[in-house]
Amino acid sequence: MNKVLILGAGGVAKVTAIKCAQQPEVFDEIILASRTLAKCDLIADAAKRLTGTIIKTEAVSVSMTDNTDLVALLEKHRPNILINLVDPYFDLIVMEACLKAKVNYVDTANFEPVEEARMRYDEQWAMSDKFKEAGLLAVLGCGFDPGVSQAMTAYAAKNYFNEMHELHIMDCNAGDHGHVFATNFSPEINIREVGSPARFWKDGQWVNVDPIISPLESRPDYHFAFNYPEIGPKETYLIYHEELQSLVKNFPTLKVATFGMTFGPQYLAHLRVLQNVGMTRIDEVDYNGFKVVPVKFLEKLLPDPASLAKNYTGKTNIGCVIKGLDKNNEPKSYYIYNICDHAECYKETESQGISYTAGVPPMTGAKMILQGEWQGTGVFNVEQLNPDPFMKALMTDGLPWVEVFDKDVPEVKW
Amino acid sequence: MNKVLILGAGGVAKVTAIKCAQQPEVFDEIILASRTLAKCDLIADAAKRLTGTIIKTEAVSVSMTDNTDLVALLEKHRPNILINLVDPYFDLIVMEACLKAKVNYVDTANFEPVEEARMRYDEQWAMSDKFKEAGLLAVLGCGFDPGVSQAMTAYAAKNYFNEMHELHIMDCNAGDHGHVFATNFSPEINIREVGSPARFWKDGQWVNVDPIISPLESRPDYHFAFNYPEIGPKETYLIYHEELQSLVKNFPTLKVATFGMTFGPQYLAHLRVLQNVGMTRIDEVDYNGFKVVPVKFLEKLLPDPASLAKNYTGKTNIGCVIKGLDKNNEPKSYYIYNICDHAECYKETESQGISYTAGVPPMTGAKMILQGEWQGTGVFNVEQLNPDPFMKALMTDGLPWVEVFDKDVPEVKW
Repeated sequence: MNKVLILGAGGVAKVTAIKCAQQPEVFDEIILASRTLAKCDLIADAAKRLTGTIIKTEAVSVSMTDNTDLVALLEKHRPNILINLVDPYFDLIVMEACLKAKVNYVDTANFEPVEEARMRYDEQWAMSDKFKEAGLLAVLGCGFDPGVSQAMTAYAAKNYFNEMHELHIMDCNAGDHGHVFATNFSPEINIREVGSPARFWKDGQWVNVDPIISPLESRPDYHFAFNYPEIGPKETYLIYHEELQSLVKNFPTLKVATFGMTFGPQYLAHLRVLQNVGMTRIDEVDYNGFKVVPVKFLEKLLPDPASLAKNYTGKTNIGCVIKGLDKNNEPKSYYIYNICDHAECYKETESQGISYTAGVPPMTGAKMILQGEWQGTGVFNVEQLNPDPFMKALMTDGLPWVEVFDKDVPEVKW
Repeated sequence: MNKVLILGAGGVAKVTAIKCAQQPEVFDEIILASRTLAKCDLIADAAKRLTGTIIKTEAVSVSMTDNTDLVALLEKHRPNILINLVDPYFDLIVMEACLKAKVNYVDTANFEPVEEARMRYDEQWAMSDKFKEAGLLAVLGCGFDPGVSQAMTAYAAKNYFNEMHELHIMDCNAGDHGHVFATNFSPEINIREVGSPARFWKDGQWVNVDPIISPLESRPDYHFAFNYPEIGPKETYLIYHEELQSLVKNFPTLKVATFGMTFGPQYLAHLRVLQNVGMTRIDEVDYNGFKVVPVKFLEKLLPDPASLAKNYTGKTNIGCVIKGLDKNNEPKSYYIYNICDHAECYKETESQGISYTAGVPPMTGAKMILQGEWQGTGVFNVEQLNPDPFMKALMTDGLPWVEVFDKDVPEVKW
């Protein structure tokens, strides 16, 4: 019997749960567990209404140092796979729980400690031997980007290229949620990300760039308008994203690897002010004897990302531009992307497109493991697993993709 | 023996204390009291160093509902006057303490309740009979504006006008403190002020205008560049200030009364973002079971206004443009203003110009009472007291003023 346990009850977990519920022939049993049972129950209600499938819900408490409760829950249900969709601070302790309870593991964001915003796989990679010894598979970063972006790259490498030289992950959200300022996923995680130094890979080393949140003048060369299919030109800014770390390691022929993301001028103006006044700080500040973390307090004030879904319009376009030598060692340009429509996502899962694009792939990844398409023991990044069945499944799982070749590939200007 | 007790140990209290200490022939004894004795001691140290005068310091706790401790302190020291320079939430309870202990009262900002930002004298005016019965004088709003702005108006009425028709209080800070965003006095009080609806007096009624913190498009007509002497043209925005309430009452011939203040584009941009994200809210927000007031939390993050003083450069120019009929019933335009230089203020009092302009007048007002120039029982606004000796004293107390007549008066464009 194929059982999956989804840990977390945020916007992404809702999509993953509903997408699993759409495929009862794959997932015989779905358990949704989080700190707050009521949030799980709301998602289970939506899944029942939208798919007819019953999801079991459980309350479980996990701290940064204690997974006793989670281990007990895993031992009670004995799922084949745990899909970890809680804040990335908990990745290591959740992975430890999977080792103890002998459960395969899938997540969507790299571990980072609360006290330091950083994007790297080192700590999770270091657990690979333990997963090997336990005969378990852990798949890291199986959302859209990281996740699908790496499968797209692996798909290109396998099917079109002898040697990849340039990789540009291009992430555009051209949606409109009607708020002057809101974040599409956890404001805390979002702000930690855009407040981190940007960097890209060039000729065997990392080139550091000021965070996107810095005054624009400090990084004049790191934005341009990329012409996204079905959307049009949108100003795109260089940021750093964790999958670049594993991609340049697994595809050592890459001379250049970048990650670009669109931001609106209003969004950036707000972020810069919040940075200036200290509201993006992740350390504790004394408030009448109580410790308050500015970015966590800001989260209490901003709209709940899930609440944006209902009136969200417009599209997302996320994909990879790859350049190199094709199977005949001729120069080749290739662009592969997915487009999602926020309103369509809402119709299907009562979620916005950012949650949708991040929430579908962990379901598809879990399916690959259950169906034996992805096998192995240890800790893997997505590009290390066979891209073909995964990319094929995305076509019908809700994230269909398009390929563009050579002269039709939009120009990348960095 | 002339004793003054200064309540509060913020930036304004520091100036008032040092200015009192400069005139030991007027103030035989100065007591500085606040919640935190260490803050009082720091000010007393500065006063000793800068003037040679010894200031006594005391710790005293006052809550919004309990003045027992303050009454005991007043009964211990028996000052002639209490100068109230704590947050305006405490005005009423401090006035009650003065009634109990038989002490005259001076403050610089109108009472407002914590839960509602508002500028009005109603609650304090309602205490006038109690002060009369006690044979005590309370002078409200004796800072610069309110305060000197009203004395200037009364001075004009007494010496130049038969009938005043227009009054425009023009407040410019052309200083530079070197921070991207900081407030010149308590961020909480500052933000409550600029977040409040603006209004002005026209033809016997109040005209309401959106707060300055609103999107600029919502109030296109309420800003213009006023040509401040020694500074030059500076964009000035219509806001509401409490002294307009008493001025239009005490000078009923006024057909128009406005208050304009300069703001830089960066300052306004920051305020608008903080408003958009909810950081200017004055209500309590739950943060992990603890109640946090956003604007008070913001205050913990922003630079301490007192810390701005050392490197503050540039000038302030605050004054009144008055139009009407002169003593011969001929049309007359009149402009009276004071200029302060931030660096000069720092040299004299180790304080910036905004604290200085607000902190000198309560000293001068207290001197007027001690010298018998201001007499009476009940609650008074500054324009109800003889402006001549007060204006004369300002000349040598650190706030000298300049008069400009008729065609030399810069144009007011609202």
